[in-house]
Amino acid sequence: MRIRVVTPIVTRGLRDAGDLRAFEGPGCRIEHELIDHGPASIECAADEALAAPAVMAAALRAEREGVDALLIDCFGDPGLDAARECVRIPVIGPGEVSLHAAAMLGRHIALISVLESVRPLLMHLVLRYGLSERLAAMRMVEMPVLDLQHGMSRLQQAMAAQAVAAVREDGADVVVLGCTGFHGCAECVQTALQAEGLDVPVVDPIPLSMRWTQALVAGGLRHSKRAWPTPSPKPVAGLGGLFDGWR
Amino acid sequence: MRIRVVTPIVTRGLRDAGDLRAFEGPGCRIEHELIDHGPASIECAADEALAAPAVMAAALRAEREGVDALLIDCFGDPGLDAARECVRIPVIGPGEVSLHAAAMLGRHIALISVLESVRPLLMHLVLRYGLSERLAAMRMVEMPVLDLQHGMSRLQQAMAAQAVAAVREDGADVVVLGCTGFHGCAECVQTALQAEGLDVPVVDPIPLSMRWTQALVAGGLRHSKRAWPTPSPKPVAGLGGLFDGWR
Amino acid sequence: MRIRVVTPIVTRGLRDAGDLRAFEGPGCRIEHELIDHGPASIECAADEALAAPAVMAAALRAEREGVDALLIDCFGDPGLDAARECVRIPVIGPGEVSLHAAAMLGRHIALISVLESVRPLLMHLVLRYGLSERLAAMRMVEMPVLDLQHGMSRLQQAMAAQAVAAVREDGADVVVLGCTGFHGCAECVQTALQAEGLDVPVVDPIPLSMRWTQALVAGGLRHSKRAWPTPSPKPVAGLGGLFDGWR
Amino acid sequence: MRIRVVTPIVTRGLRDAGDLRAFEGPGCRIEHELIDHGPASIECAADEALAAPAVMAAALRAEREGVDALLIDCFGDPGLDAARECVRIPVIGPGEVSLHAAAMLGRHIALISVLESVRPLLMHLVLRYGLSERLAAMRMVEMPVLDLQHGMSRLQQAMAAQAVAAVREDGADVVVLGCTGFHGCAECVQTALQAEGLDVPVVDPIPLSMRWTQALVAGGLRHSKRAWPTPSPKPVAGLGGLFDGWR
Amino acid sequence: MRIRVVTPIVTRGLRDAGDLRAFEGPGCRIEHELIDHGPASIECAADEALAAPAVMAAALRAEREGVDALLIDCFGDPGLDAARECVRIPVIGPGEVSLHAAAMLGRHIALISVLESVRPLLMHLVLRYGLSERLAAMRMVEMPVLDLQHGMSRLQQAMAAQAVAAVREDGADVVVLGCTGFHGCAECVQTALQAEGLDVPVVDPIPLSMRWTQALVAGGLRHSKRAWPTPSPKPVAGLGGLFDGWR
Amino acid sequence: MRIRVVTPIVTRGLRDAGDLRAFEGPGCRIEHELIDHGPASIECAADEALAAPAVMAAALRAEREGVDALLIDCFGDPGLDAARECVRIPVIGPGEVSLHAAAMLGRHIALISVLESVRPLLMHLVLRYGLSERLAAMRMVEMPVLDLQHGMSRLQQAMAAQAVAAVREDGADVVVLGCTGFHGCAECVQTALQAEGLDVPVVDPIPLSMRWTQALVAGGLRHSKRAWPTPSPKPVAGLGGLFDGWR
Repeated sequence: MRIRVVTPIVTRGLRDAGDLRAFEGPGCRIEHELIDHGPASIECAADEALAAPAVMAAALRAEREGVDALLIDCFGDPGLDAARECVRIPVIGPGEVSLHAAAMLGRHIALISVLESVRPLLMHLVLRYGLSERLAAMRMVEMPVLDLQHGMSRLQQAMAAQAVAAVREDGADVVVLGCTGFHGCAECVQTALQAEGLDVPVVDPIPLSMRWTQALVAGGLRHSKRAWPTPSPKPVAGLGGLFDGWR
Repeated sequence: MRIRVVTPIVTRGLRDAGDLRAFEGPGCRIEHELIDHGPASIECAADEALAAPAVMAAALRAEREGVDALLIDCFGDPGLDAARECVRIPVIGPGEVSLHAAAMLGRHIALISVLESVRPLLMHLVLRYGLSERLAAMRMVEMPVLDLQHGMSRLQQAMAAQAVAAVREDGADVVVLGCTGFHGCAECVQTALQAEGLDVPVVDPIPLSMRWTQALVAGGLRHSKRAWPTPSPKPVAGLGGLFDGWR
Repeated sequence: MRIRVVTPIVTRGLRDAGDLRAFEGPGCRIEHELIDHGPASIECAADEALAAPAVMAAALRAEREGVDALLIDCFGDPGLDAARECVRIPVIGPGEVSLHAAAMLGRHIALISVLESVRPLLMHLVLRYGLSERLAAMRMVEMPVLDLQHGMSRLQQAMAAQAVAAVREDGADVVVLGCTGFHGCAECVQTALQAEGLDVPVVDPIPLSMRWTQALVAGGLRHSKRAWPTPSPKPVAGLGGLFDGWR
Repeated sequence: MRIRVVTPIVTRGLRDAGDLRAFEGPGCRIEHELIDHGPASIECAADEALAAPAVMAAALRAEREGVDALLIDCFGDPGLDAARECVRIPVIGPGEVSLHAAAMLGRHIALISVLESVRPLLMHLVLRYGLSERLAAMRMVEMPVLDLQHGMSRLQQAMAAQAVAAVREDGADVVVLGCTGFHGCAECVQTALQAEGLDVPVVDPIPLSMRWTQALVAGGLRHSKRAWPTPSPKPVAGLGGLFDGWR
Repeated sequence: MRIRVVTPIVTRGLRDAGDLRAFEGPGCRIEHELIDHGPASIECAADEALAAPAVMAAALRAEREGVDALLIDCFGDPGLDAARECVRIPVIGPGEVSLHAAAMLGRHIALISVLESVRPLLMHLVLRYGLSERLAAMRMVEMPVLDLQHGMSRLQQAMAAQAVAAVREDGADVVVLGCTGFHGCAECVQTALQAEGLDVPVVDPIPLSMRWTQALVAGGLRHSKRAWPTPSPKPVAGLGGLFDGWR
Repeated sequence: MRIRVVTPIVTRGLRDAGDLRAFEGPGCRIEHELIDHGPASIECAADEALAAPAVMAAALRAEREGVDALLIDCFGDPGLDAARECVRIPVIGPGEVSLHAAAMLGRHIALISVLESVRPLLMHLVLRYGLSERLAAMRMVEMPVLDLQHGMSRLQQAMAAQAVAAVREDGADVVVLGCTGFHGCAECVQTALQAEGLDVPVVDPIPLSMRWTQALVAGGLRHSKRAWPTPSPKPVAGLGGLFDGWR
């Protein structure tokens, strides 16, 4: 089983590929790549629009190269619908998986993410997945994606504070880390919640989506081509030649 | 990792424990049990009410015996909320997992189940999980649970016919087998759909829920005790002594 | 007309049968019984699951004995669907009747109940009856059911305070007493609201449901057997013999 | 107890006051009146707008004359909100009561009414009462209100046919007669349903609303003045002097 | 193009016809009229019920006199459905147009209106137009309609304060002036928002609805007669002869 | 007033700029442009993803060049959110305007579009704009966008047939042409409906959106920057240099 992770930004050094290799095992290889065409980070609808074409291209290449599934390494699931149309291998969005998982682990979901500018994106995500009724809180740490790595301890404190407030003040009973750049922070948030006597699960999108991807491939399940039908061939111009020779 | 499957009926011979052992592996043991107090099969709200106390008791015993997670072997998820209150180990309902998975694999879900009498239960399930907007079709094979084993070929024909009709006539694009007694039929339904040119995934609840359970245990995730708080101690009378010595 | 009230707990002394006889009149006899199999009180999903089988059994016996309607004496309506499947005489849940009545008496409903642990049950009830949009507030007096009788004055003070807060702070304009153990407190809550200049109706579930039951029987109305079809005969094992000889 | 019924049309002879007196009893007097300002019958939004001022005036007069509750004799509940603002005695709309009752007697409601032109009114009614999810069918007999009396047998045949179709084809499991001019037809519709093996309750709005009104008065319940606050005094011009001397 | 504005109250002097003439141009004449039958101002459901018959009559007369469209000068859109049934020329409600426009200019709507007593009317309006999910705030200046003109500076201060609070505290991102009597205040509210650094559009219902009406007439669009079918002829009695000779 | 129309495809000759100049007038200039980076036509989510970056770039350029508003010439509104974030001038999507307008002209909307592959896009659009409850029908003429011009008479016949069916069979009462390539067909569809006795408005997205854009600019209204906040500066790589020198 070969699973490929595409981090849909052009900034090197943010995603530690070693983190991902922790999910490898006998019979499961994890590959990682960045994109070359797109934004430095994803924090608004404009950034998502800039990333989507390269996610599509990554899905096409992954399928062509015999990869079994593609995992998009961004909580906003940019390009998810477009990529699913283009290929038959499963394309997984961590936002979708995390929200549905949270809906099974609790009743009232708290999303903790980076900046106010992502709020409309996340609201839209929750609406699109039909889980608006389950959202109890959306709170931000007010820290840009590109600063996350350099301010880990401040980040973890801010996340823990928002998580506790989401449970105590907004009635949330399950917490979702709403940015894949938060990978590795779940334990610290969990500890902070427990210190307050709050027995609440914390969903870290990357490990959860990785295990869900493995479960789908093991079970031979893929997305419905009736829901995401393959586009008919048609010219694409410009975009740095990203789709030269495709349709 | 020890996962226990409880089949919440008193009829022996319906669930082949061998089927479940197929999900064992290095580091994962699967155990199976029936209940002693409850109905012969589950086909209506009355049957579910009769099964729920024994599911609770099974969860309590599983936790006491060091099991890591309990999987309820009935699509209606009888006793799920009650059992989650009683224990801290994950309790998994295949109805919940299958419906959320289907919502990620397609846009419009078809549920195929046994008898008209389960329709209100399944409608209620879909409402409770917040997925009513995603349900495109609910169709029955009109075959009681206890007859499933003896009429396998007729059952598979009926399921395939209903699945094709759900896609063609009701606009469904993902099919869920809405009874854990249908285990093993997904492939045949898939083949029938493909023969009609319909590229639509078919969700078999038991394998999917089993893999989901394994993913949760591997990731250290459990249900929120804030959403399903542990009941305070209190006497329980009668019920064949099912809860003697509990609270 | 014979109406039977079943209090679905095993604790004697909580329900004063004299309270119920106040609704008798020429041509209307009120009977009362407790259950023998089930919990001491109902404060969570586990308690409801433990009470439901005995409610079903009570419905079967009531119908057999020529009773005209069965009223379940618990706001959570435990076993309502299951009991309706088993019999053709009306089975009435005070939660359902009170919520629908409140939706006709005001626009924004406040539910006042016992403990935080019943919140998920009541949320689920409101969702199931399709009245979520109408719920403005759910507030608890934080007093266990078994203590209600011994702390009447503290209870009434707490209820009045929560009712006033629900109207002033949460925008509620009709108050529902969300526990049948609160019977007799409506007047005191009403007085407290009026003292604050708040002209808001207070629904006491038992008197309202009793009158609704009488209206249904007088009008010859009963629940749809198409919505709650009678289960086909099938063995039931254990459960203290509660269903011996039934199916 | 004095209950007044206002038939909000100017056509004499349609409502047989004798029908209403059947609900009288020791301690309950039923009064009846027509309006003088308004339409000949109610079959569209324009008719409702024409009837509403006189319903308000009737509520004001009823309260002034010591009546205990006012029942509006039209399924569309014309003037209900306006009348409730003007008075403190309960004002009852049979559409509201019947729809909520049906929601308790079944899961999927069928409304049978007079003409296509009332469909938007009834859709609006169902939306306003928050019961859209419960509506399974709305079917018309295509007979104007003023013809109902002269074509009773044709009417009853048409209603029975639509009711059977609503259950068989649209999945309804409870039938509501969606016009108070259908009073007296429930039995015949019920019989027709039973002849088809369909065990489904039929709600006749007038008897049900009458009993509900009696239950409210007996229980001392009235609508929330916080939800329907009394208007401040202010001149009203014209309208045939309907409100001379009011504000 | 002739557009007529009907102010559905009997109080002279509130609407300055000069304000409306600002929207005239080559090929577009704006006419204005009050009603003779109805309330002094509109602040509750009773007032709306009293205004609706005269709005219908105004629509009938406008169509008879060759007017191209009728604009109702009240945010509550009184008589809108009834008037649309009666005529084929477009009848425009400023509440409907403003709410849909706001839904396109922002994501979370704030409504600022006159008195608490209009809250239920406006909630009902928002529900009826299907935009409840988009409403973030409804705040009142607590000033009766008839006082608006005499307290302009206090009014504008109050509106600005509520608008700022709606954005800062309730999360609104677009503001709608929820009373046509607020005409001319948008600029001042906008300025106050900008002074707080809030870049949020403010919708003034009259100018917006006027331009929408002109756009509809220019494009030859009118409301669906299938949705608002013309009533069949039928007597109307009383109401000051408002409908003498109509049906 | 300068309004620019961007047709977000790379195929020349489909949009006749003359059609757009019909909306010019004294004080209003209409400009038109195609994109250079993107798909040949838009018929699926992949096509939309490919068009969105160039729509963003067009919005940035339009604002820089002093244009007053940008109208996206595609019913799917590709890049709408992203473009609104980037600029302060109004960016208008014809899908959004047409759906809200239809919601004001009728009660039950029919969308007629090109191919089955656009169904998920349009469903998503309707959901995002909060109008799902109002959608009665979505029907396709099954003709690719690039063939529309060469098969005008076949197209108009197909559209008329689907429109009539949507009204008769699906209960629609207002028709929206769900593709800007259908510009000019409204009259023919209207005529066909009238020939069947169906008095139903037909919304042609381009003229309607053009007039709406003019109304917004005249009224000084623009989208909320609080809802679509301007992104902070950040590098963008590749994409044919579409964003060189932007952030």
